[in-house]
Parts: sequence; structure tokens; C-alpha cells
Amino acid sequence: MNSIQTTGIILFAHGSRDPQWRLPFEAILQSMRAQHTGPTELAFLECMDPSLPKAIDAMAQTGVKHINVIPVFLAVGSHVRKDLPILLDASRAAHPALTITASAAIGEQVDIQQAIALFALSTLG
Amino acid sequence: MNSIQTTGIILFAHGSRDPQWRLPFEAILQSMRAQHTGPTELAFLECMDPSLPKAIDAMAQTGVKHINVIPVFLAVGSHVRKDLPILLDASRAAHPALTITASAAIGEQVDIQQAIALFALSTLG
Repeated sequence: MNSIQTTGIILFAHGSRDPQWRLPFEAILQSMRAQHTGPTELAFLECMDPSLPKAIDAMAQTGVKHINVIPVFLAVGSHVRKDLPILLDASRAAHPALTITASAAIGEQVDIQQAIALFALSTLG
Repeated sequence: MNSIQTTGIILFAHGSRDPQWRLPFEAILQSMRAQHTGPTELAFLECMDPSLPKAIDAMAQTGVKHINVIPVFLAVGSHVRKDLPILLDASRAAHPALTITASAAIGEQVDIQQAIALFALSTLG
């Protein structure tokens, strides 16, 4: 396997009691899987399965060497700044042979900010 | 004024007690303003100013005929499904001459889902 196939990506989102809430995240995951054959999964902070620790445990069994967690949050508050590092440290302790990293939150990406701005302006018709 | 200049856009986001949390929304607003001269503003559901009713009141004073609210939420839960319509109905009652609409949540837009998927895959290097 090359490095792309030994790296897994987990999309980490907030979660909700409303089962419909996960649909956009499922759509993002399907878009990724249509373009990439390596391991990709969802995980949630609250209310939805799998939790991030469970998703990392399961992905670790696939033989990946590195997991990168993408915080699918529009902005950085306590969930990304405090809760996520605690979860990552616990998973690093549980899987010492695995490299576990996290990207910046998706809302901090200029390309995504611009896509949202373009959509907003497109509603002017 | 043409119809684009008589329509205002309000980006409606969740809000947070963390003042840094609003930075991505400010960046989206600046991106819009760099491309468009009509009225554009932010509003928040909780913890941050202005609230959506205050933002609509202020924009109504600029002479717009139509305000479109963009829910800058990644997914649809009770904030978009229940809280937002209640706020919109109250503002419609307060401003009967104004047309107030709302778009689908930004996380439901395929272009934005694909931008998030592309960013996630780009982290594979």
C-alpha cells in the first residue's frame, strides 16, 4: 500500500438527536468515497454513532498507519479547541503505533468560506 | 436601484460565547462584500450580536424590499427547522411591507459538500 492507502480520514462532526441531521455529512463522505479508495469514515461528538474513539478504534484495525481527523465545524469553539484534543490524546494513548492528527476546522478554510459566499450571492438570482 | 440592490442578504449562524468563533463568518461576509455592493450582514441565534430580529430591523431601514436569510449551518436540526421559522414569522409581522425568505442550510448545498470533501482529501498530500 502507498501512503495514501495507509492514511485514513475521519470526518468529525457535532451530532444531533435529529437523525436527519447527519445527511449532509453522509453526502460529504459519499463524495469523498467516489474519488478515493482509502479508509474514510464519519464520527460524532454527541448523540450519534460512532463516537470519535470508536471510529478510530475501528479504523486502526484496517492497518492504517496514520489517521487524520477533519473537524467538520464551521467555526472553532470549545468543541474543537477543548473536547477534540482530549479525545485525540486518549486515542493516541490507546493506539501508540498510530499517528493521529487533526486538520483545522473546515470553516477556517478560505476555499470553503468562498464557496459559502458564492452560494449566498447566488441566491440573488 | 435594480432588484439586486433592493435585496439584502443576512448570513444567520449559531453564535458562541467564544468571541473568536465569529471569525469565519466575518471572512465569509468580507468575501461577499468584495464581490457585491448590496446590503449584506451577519446575525446570530445565540450569544452574539446582532440577533436575527435586530439585523432584519436594521436592514429594513436601508430601503430593501426583500431580505434573504442564509442559514450558515452544516446540517438541519431544531435551530434551522424550528427556531429560524419562529424568528422569521415575528420579523414578517414587524415588517409587513418586506418580503423575508430563507434559503436551505449551506450544508445541504452540493457545491459546499463537494468543497468540504475536496478539502478533506487534500489533507492526504
